[in-house]
Amino acid sequence: MSAIAIPGKTKNPALSSTGSRRTMKALVYYGPGKKFWEEKSTPAIVEPTDALVKIQKTTICGTDLHIMKGDVPEVVPGTIIGHEGVGIIEEVGSAVSNFKKGDHVLISCITSCGKCDYCKRGMYSHCENGGWILGHLIDGTQAEYVRIPHADNSLYHIPDGSDEEALVMLSDILPTGFECGVLNGKVQPGSTVAIVGSGPIGLAALLTAQFYSPAQIILIDPDDNRLAVAKKFGATEIINNSKVDPIERVKTLTGNKGADTVIEAVGIPATFELCQSLVAPGGTIANIGVHGKSAELHLERLWAHNITITTRLVDTVTTPMLLKTIQSKKLNSRQLITHHFKLSDIINAYDTFQNAAKEKALKVILTSE
Amino acid sequence: MSAIAIPGKTKNPALSSTGSRRTMKALVYYGPGKKFWEEKSTPAIVEPTDALVKIQKTTICGTDLHIMKGDVPEVVPGTIIGHEGVGIIEEVGSAVSNFKKGDHVLISCITSCGKCDYCKRGMYSHCENGGWILGHLIDGTQAEYVRIPHADNSLYHIPDGSDEEALVMLSDILPTGFECGVLNGKVQPGSTVAIVGSGPIGLAALLTAQFYSPAQIILIDPDDNRLAVAKKFGATEIINNSKVDPIERVKTLTGNKGADTVIEAVGIPATFELCQSLVAPGGTIANIGVHGKSAELHLERLWAHNITITTRLVDTVTTPMLLKTIQSKKLNSRQLITHHFKLSDIINAYDTFQNAAKEKALKVILTSE
Amino acid sequence: MSAIAIPGKTKNPALSSTGSRRTMKALVYYGPGKKFWEEKSTPAIVEPTDALVKIQKTTICGTDLHIMKGDVPEVVPGTIIGHEGVGIIEEVGSAVSNFKKGDHVLISCITSCGKCDYCKRGMYSHCENGGWILGHLIDGTQAEYVRIPHADNSLYHIPDGSDEEALVMLSDILPTGFECGVLNGKVQPGSTVAIVGSGPIGLAALLTAQFYSPAQIILIDPDDNRLAVAKKFGATEIINNSKVDPIERVKTLTGNKGADTVIEAVGIPATFELCQSLVAPGGTIANIGVHGKSAELHLERLWAHNITITTRLVDTVTTPMLLKTIQSKKLNSRQLITHHFKLSDIINAYDTFQNAAKEKALKVILTSE
Amino acid sequence: MSAIAIPGKTKNPALSSTGSRRTMKALVYYGPGKKFWEEKSTPAIVEPTDALVKIQKTTICGTDLHIMKGDVPEVVPGTIIGHEGVGIIEEVGSAVSNFKKGDHVLISCITSCGKCDYCKRGMYSHCENGGWILGHLIDGTQAEYVRIPHADNSLYHIPDGSDEEALVMLSDILPTGFECGVLNGKVQPGSTVAIVGSGPIGLAALLTAQFYSPAQIILIDPDDNRLAVAKKFGATEIINNSKVDPIERVKTLTGNKGADTVIEAVGIPATFELCQSLVAPGGTIANIGVHGKSAELHLERLWAHNITITTRLVDTVTTPMLLKTIQSKKLNSRQLITHHFKLSDIINAYDTFQNAAKEKALKVILTSE
Repeated sequence: MSAIAIPGKTKNPALSSTGSRRTMKALVYYGPGKKFWEEKSTPAIVEPTDALVKIQKTTICGTDLHIMKGDVPEVVPGTIIGHEGVGIIEEVGSAVSNFKKGDHVLISCITSCGKCDYCKRGMYSHCENGGWILGHLIDGTQAEYVRIPHADNSLYHIPDGSDEEALVMLSDILPTGFECGVLNGKVQPGSTVAIVGSGPIGLAALLTAQFYSPAQIILIDPDDNRLAVAKKFGATEIINNSKVDPIERVKTLTGNKGADTVIEAVGIPATFELCQSLVAPGGTIANIGVHGKSAELHLERLWAHNITITTRLVDTVTTPMLLKTIQSKKLNSRQLITHHFKLSDIINAYDTFQNAAKEKALKVILTSE
Repeated sequence: MSAIAIPGKTKNPALSSTGSRRTMKALVYYGPGKKFWEEKSTPAIVEPTDALVKIQKTTICGTDLHIMKGDVPEVVPGTIIGHEGVGIIEEVGSAVSNFKKGDHVLISCITSCGKCDYCKRGMYSHCENGGWILGHLIDGTQAEYVRIPHADNSLYHIPDGSDEEALVMLSDILPTGFECGVLNGKVQPGSTVAIVGSGPIGLAALLTAQFYSPAQIILIDPDDNRLAVAKKFGATEIINNSKVDPIERVKTLTGNKGADTVIEAVGIPATFELCQSLVAPGGTIANIGVHGKSAELHLERLWAHNITITTRLVDTVTTPMLLKTIQSKKLNSRQLITHHFKLSDIINAYDTFQNAAKEKALKVILTSE
Repeated sequence: MSAIAIPGKTKNPALSSTGSRRTMKALVYYGPGKKFWEEKSTPAIVEPTDALVKIQKTTICGTDLHIMKGDVPEVVPGTIIGHEGVGIIEEVGSAVSNFKKGDHVLISCITSCGKCDYCKRGMYSHCENGGWILGHLIDGTQAEYVRIPHADNSLYHIPDGSDEEALVMLSDILPTGFECGVLNGKVQPGSTVAIVGSGPIGLAALLTAQFYSPAQIILIDPDDNRLAVAKKFGATEIINNSKVDPIERVKTLTGNKGADTVIEAVGIPATFELCQSLVAPGGTIANIGVHGKSAELHLERLWAHNITITTRLVDTVTTPMLLKTIQSKKLNSRQLITHHFKLSDIINAYDTFQNAAKEKALKVILTSE
Repeated sequence: MSAIAIPGKTKNPALSSTGSRRTMKALVYYGPGKKFWEEKSTPAIVEPTDALVKIQKTTICGTDLHIMKGDVPEVVPGTIIGHEGVGIIEEVGSAVSNFKKGDHVLISCITSCGKCDYCKRGMYSHCENGGWILGHLIDGTQAEYVRIPHADNSLYHIPDGSDEEALVMLSDILPTGFECGVLNGKVQPGSTVAIVGSGPIGLAALLTAQFYSPAQIILIDPDDNRLAVAKKFGATEIINNSKVDPIERVKTLTGNKGADTVIEAVGIPATFELCQSLVAPGGTIANIGVHGKSAELHLERLWAHNITITTRLVDTVTTPMLLKTIQSKKLNSRQLITHHFKLSDIINAYDTFQNAAKEKALKVILTSE
């Protein structure tokens, strides 16, 4: 999940709900640099469409690091962080019909009411009653229990016999790479894809781009370790842009045309600038990166190049499709997992994840006891 | 046609071809500010795929004004200007099979070979053997005769009984408004369209947007006269942005959501900036404007808004479709014509067109004698 | 709504719900040929997602006539008929959030839960918890009150100042013509559309096809009166196929190519056979008709013609779009209304509607007192 | 290539062209059951758009067997058969610009002029000046030399270092399976595909369906050998429908829903009938089979199932895309080749191919000396 607020979301009153007297442990944000694994009231059902989920596995997102630094000001101190995970239904509200106590579920980072205009159009990210709220505007998943609003549209059944750990990658990172990068980028059999950024999200795009059998997938990053991972994950070419001019190299690899799809998976002006030099006439730049600044758009050159630029906050509409690709072994999402911790050891997990380069960390799994 | 060169086009040797000893009159560019209506050799067939067309009607494009100012440096002195018109086939090369002497034809501003990769993909604008070359890299249509390369793919039959003058609008301005603005902008029944710029090209987008029955078409321009024309042409709302804040007004008109389609029909940073403030989440900014400078792209806000931005040099792939809409009276292209001149009076026609605001000029028709 | 059962729908226990002691008047089906306007218990909220709607206006569908003849065996005696209408919310269940008492609403013929796989894919017709159930598997709208399950996803707000009577046409007939005929048929600007059948549903396709500005819309029917209406509604050509060979005539009108879109709006083998002779290579046959028998598909000819055939039970996913086209006067749905009755006079209304040819009836409006 | 004539194609006068006095060997059809490998005049350039190609490798198509039986009456005695192959350009006409003597080329089974309405729309199969004419209406590729009309649009460059034998599969069978089956069938990541018929064309669909990473690909055929090949080629399930009820089995495999895509790769009423029982609501039946008879279409059931049925004669518009997938090793087309012969031994090759089941033959390669 990405770190910028969606306008119009207001803090859900349920944050301070203490319908239940029971307590649990959770990771609570107390302002920039301050987080504690501490006792909190176990959440309770507030709306008839809510479900209460006992977390089995969760993970940490790059966005969580941004929150911890104070970059996401709408996250108020006292909020439980986290928007990814799998768990078991503990209780459902009276209007929940798809799930019942004991069901194993995948939690989507996006909460979808299923009945506003945006949800009906498949734009769950802009749900008028949800969107990205978990671990952001309401308490999240880095806890023993989490309340999931609009449960029928925001949770997914985990088929029996699944590798549940692998499915944690479906909460956010894989639909993000797939929807924002691969689908928006219109990857096609035989086409050329350039991905700028070989971090977890660029790698998620790399893995899911292969659903469409492009002829070339070129990964560009200044870190050789990350590029080595990309190669292992299926990149046909890797370019270390601290050593090699990526524009010249992509030209060489594409007969001077450029890439049909260019995926921005970093989120800074320099990488967006690079994308504009890599895209072929008729091609697409699909932005995934979370940008904190504006970028320069070279319309003086691109106006006549028949290109498309897309932006998107993940909608998680493809979660059912992605579940099927994992079940049928078309996608090995487990590859993204590099480290394991107990949920109660989450402070150490943050340390590891924060030092991703040194630790060669992609995604860490936190398991409840 | 727009004024920026497509890289890789080289000046066609046929420019100086004088296979014929006959002469004709033509408008010749001799460097910034210098143009003459003068005697030139009548062009001759150079390639077996060429046709020679006797011009019946032509017109002047905003791009021609840019050429005359010297803004399009790849136009070399001595070039005959113009890339629009209708005429009668005078002669065809040995490999031309769709046309014969005497056929009435519409000339496309885009020359398409029909056999390169781009042409096969419908991206005629990027034809490796054509593209925008008429009145640019080879002699054009503001003349008594013009040589049309790749005639079979670059000319269109005019059905008997057609209003040929109205069809001159199909050479460039209508496919440009339609393909770059309306099709790329994905205008839909019931949707909201905002068009920034009410000049000829914005009006062409306005006329063709109505093919898809949007609920609202909002025209934004600082000139009341142009807005009055827009109203007459079917705009449901007009906004004079020198008097009214267009962002606030569009918000009011769209229940705070913004426009589903925003069409940029000016080509400067300020108007592209405005477009970014008008587009609804999930919407599209379709650029038509010819930009001379880069623009600022507000990714720090738009990254999460699920928007699409498109650019396009007109391909004229929709010319057959547009011909049918004119034949069936779904499109009244004649409305765009405000002035008439004899072809030999073209210098005066340029004067009028250059003072478009004062003369209330949209498109001028030049008729050969 | 069409008359064939969707497999897997089971009779909703709410049919016999009598949670309320109040009574109302309703049209009740008692087996083939037997219907009475009689006293019934007023329905009550059963599920938290239900709404109770006081009917203001309703209408009769061709399918209702089929039900009355006994052609739809899953309609059990005792069922209140009707699946179209507008009304006012009387009461909502505890989980309904989009509507409240007093809201004016349009009732969709299709009930959509918004949370099953089909609903998420926009295929509301196949909703696992809804679909076409109103006046079919549960009590319907030809009554003073109706219970609407899954109200948040099955009702639409009527904007203030709307012509509510005109909106009754949005419950079924207009989305059916539009989705099954026009959208599935891929009607395009400049294209040729042939519609076989000029009854209410063919006319609904005719009206909504005009959203896309086709060059030709050819209506084919053996009834001159219906064809005269078609002409008034925008048909560019009418063909009485009891007098003229429609295949020859369409060939003549299309330069021997056939129609790009052929819409089947009758539902018998002979008309489907005709459609196969009218479609151009590369074209589409979009079936709307409710078929009681199989048809012969001429694969021995069509296998190489690059055609598409589509079938669809209306999903009503386009209801919001259609509402906007009516609000913006792109669609005059009122034209379909030919007769008015008091709701209590519904037996006479059925008589008129059953004699549509003689009475020149399209749609009748029933208004509650 | 499939065996039914496209209306309007007339025998090309070039068939009897003897511009050259040289002779060559070729397989000539002399009426049902009669074919000879005999001396013929080497073809010559007739039109400026022609190329003369020296055949290096060719193959035999199921359609060639039909021709030999007399099932394709428009093939006149004296015609050289064959529409597949790779070769070397021997000579080009004056208007050919993409190719020159010595170029290695892939021959498309479809001849495309590139300048008629159908070609501009990408429907090369319906080219007004071409389509399937090779080895059908004009002399074909089972010869030492072949004249290729409209060479610029009907031949493709073979990249240096290619496995040319593998590319023979791109002349017809792979684009047919891909365009008619996979693209028309809208195969998607995670979806379920059922292919009825495990012969060469069904296997071509199987290979190219994997470009899109469906979760399941189910092959149905009564021949265990063919099914074993399918399994090796990537089928996730095989069903011998002479032993197992395929409808029940597919239901079981799909949670009772049916297959999202059903590909008909046989061409008889019984298999088309089966397809209708396998398709899920919302799914597509993509016909590839060449049908000699009409089939029964169960509209009485399917009218409400939101399905799509497509037919298509291969257009070979995807040949460039497929070339890239072979170059990048996403597609191993060589797997389809089971037998090799010298071109001069073609009569024996026909014997083997005619006894495909016994010989376990898929595609045979004929190599010139």
